Amino acid sequence: MKTPRTKLSRVPQRGSYDQATIHAILDEALIGHVAWVTPDGRPAVIPTLIARDGDDLLIHGSSASRTLRALKAGIEACVEVTHVDGLVLARSAFHHSMNYRSAILYGTLEPVEDVARALEIFTEKLVPGRWEHVRWPNRKELKATAVLRLPIAEGSAKIRTGAPVDDDEDYALDTWAGVVPLRIEPQAPAPDPLLKEGIDLPEHVRALTA
Amino acid sequence: MKTPRTKLSRVPQRGSYDQATIHAILDEALIGHVAWVTPDGRPAVIPTLIARDGDDLLIHGSSASRTLRALKAGIEACVEVTHVDGLVLARSAFHHSMNYRSAILYGTLEPVEDVARALEIFTEKLVPGRWEHVRWPNRKELKATAVLRLPIAEGSAKIRTGAPVDDDEDYALDTWAGVVPLRIEPQAPAPDPLLKEGIDLPEHVRALTA
Repeated sequence: MKTPRTKLSRVPQRGSYDQATIHAILDEALIGHVAWVTPDGRPAVIPTLIARDGDDLLIHGSSASRTLRALKAGIEACVEVTHVDGLVLARSAFHHSMNYRSAILYGTLEPVEDVARALEIFTEKLVPGRWEHVRWPNRKELKATAVLRLPIAEGSAKIRTGAPVDDDEDYALDTWAGVVPLRIEPQAPAPDPLLKEGIDLPEHVRALTA
Repeated sequence: MKTPRTKLSRVPQRGSYDQATIHAILDEALIGHVAWVTPDGRPAVIPTLIARDGDDLLIHGSSASRTLRALKAGIEACVEVTHVDGLVLARSAFHHSMNYRSAILYGTLEPVEDVARALEIFTEKLVPGRWEHVRWPNRKELKATAVLRLPIAEGSAKIRTGAPVDDDEDYALDTWAGVVPLRIEPQAPAPDPLLKEGIDLPEHVRALTA
């Protein structure tokens, strides 16, 4: 949604307020960067696993953690998510850039009561299909987990794709220019050294590297 | 440096205040997440290219950008950098985790006068060896670039590595457990469609995918 805060003033053609675009950027990201203002008025930001539940972005942590107690319901937050998709090598130093997809959300954190459901969403975010294979949380674990949601309402996306853009006269230079794409690639799964014998790699884990 | 703000209260054995550890995490990261408090007291965070210059972390942007004007010298900032190294799949939903290396710095942004040198540092950060091949910034470009530094002084690192840690009784379960490592891998360079004919891929770009 376009508001004075989310309105993109720099290179606005890279911006988007489209909910589907923002959702896609959030869904592909494991980590979000959650910023808030401390009680003494100073900035703070932490990385944390994110998962989307419809029009809410979920974050969670230990109920005992200092951060989760700071990030209590009612506090204002800004959450940023970024994928770095490539290095953009121009002919001029000045026009070097990166290809990226980022989303920035603003809002107020609200408590989530159904912690069990949130843990299912987080587990499935980490590895789709994992939930049915794991030992589900018990009462003590649910009590030890705090979950908060940020409504995905006031936010924007910003995306750069494609080749470098140089000044007209620089296209005559003999400098190589182009893009080096970057991709996050899952590697061969490493079984827990304490894994019981005879447990094969399950399909939902194999699928990550397929 | 350990201060009341950087002191790690959760899982402190994962923490470090070692400058070399923090430098290594910063040096491997292209992107940092810069948080500050807006004039009306609200949190804001943006992703931006970072580069280290000795004991300073450098950020830059267009002198005309709203963000860079907000992030002016003298403002307090918190910068966070995170590498996600792997998915940690435990037998219990509760003990699922990620392997990661993160650094969080606090401090006050200060102006950098030598913009040309900073642009060299940023260019070399993006692609080592690139600077000698590109058209260097002219006066107009230097004027259009704002550079700020955050002293790397008040900060901490947090690192998780290795296998999942489950509750004792869960090791008897038949659930596969282990780690799926994640790695950022540069892909084959894509030449600018407008690249002059006869310009081969240079060694400094080829080295990225070697």
